[in-house]
Amino acid sequence: MEYTLPQAIEILERTPGVLSALLGNLSDDWANKNEGGETWSPYDVLGHLIHGERKDWIERMKRILESGVAKPFEPFDRFAMFEESKGKTINDLLNEFRELRKANIVLLRQHYADDSVLELRGMHPALGEVSMRNLLSTWVVHDLGHLAQIARVIASQYESEVGPWKEYLPVLTRK
Amino acid sequence: MEYTLPQAIEILERTPGVLSALLGNLSDDWANKNEGGETWSPYDVLGHLIHGERKDWIERMKRILESGVAKPFEPFDRFAMFEESKGKTINDLLNEFRELRKANIVLLRQHYADDSVLELRGMHPALGEVSMRNLLSTWVVHDLGHLAQIARVIASQYESEVGPWKEYLPVLTRK
Repeated sequence: MEYTLPQAIEILERTPGVLSALLGNLSDDWANKNEGGETWSPYDVLGHLIHGERKDWIERMKRILESGVAKPFEPFDRFAMFEESKGKTINDLLNEFRELRKANIVLLRQHYADDSVLELRGMHPALGEVSMRNLLSTWVVHDLGHLAQIARVIASQYESEVGPWKEYLPVLTRK
Repeated sequence: MEYTLPQAIEILERTPGVLSALLGNLSDDWANKNEGGETWSPYDVLGHLIHGERKDWIERMKRILESGVAKPFEPFDRFAMFEESKGKTINDLLNEFRELRKANIVLLRQHYADDSVLELRGMHPALGEVSMRNLLSTWVVHDLGHLAQIARVIASQYESEVGPWKEYLPVLTRK
């Protein structure tokens, strides 16, 4: 499919409700366990999504509109949430994400003059030249990727409990 | 984590709301596209989950309680939904799933006398001997696996739109 603003917003505006339905009031046993080592728990992923609302998508959209390829995006801190989420409950994070996303969809509509903005170019600090189309569609895919990750992390807690069924459950083997 | 009934129900009872938040009133552009060939769309996956509520989890739980390993489970038809979903909207399917899941959680509690049922054994037609623990934890993981799949299928529609970001988006490359 080609990017269109209404279809993208259809997904973007659902994510807070999806995450609230999945994670709202979820017990720590499910919300705070990760896949081992340095991997992320559902709680960590939610903090990462919040940091993206603050520092990634709209910031980079504005950078493209203001500077094109002349001024690269600020690098995104993929670990900022370990500090920023401290002391917050999972419901605090869900509320914060809902408010930020709502405001950012308003900004997205404001900055999206018409479809011609999709062809504008910006400069990613590692990937090089990218288009607004790439950036805005990545926002949508990023939401869905982290939703899939949260589902996988929760599922993985029962990896040994499923016994022989594991071979029928690709969510347990694709990490 | 070891299987416990309250923790399992915590996830099972969320799935209808999560799917409604993600798929309720979703446009056909997102709901009916698959990953190509014989793969499943979000609409197809939802039909598969409904068939599971009718023919898989509680049926097999009862089979274990009634017959142990003596009588294998009925094979599960992974393609039944292509007939059964015909003519139904995605909202019809979401409502059907919600009602079935609610009723099945009641049945799950009724049939779960105490934790000792987890060690009972049944016979899977392909996997051989399995325990009630395996069956009931697979129900939870199966929900989450198909949630991850739905997120992935939707994301994949923008696979070419994301351009160079694809390498940062494992949801587009783990199929």
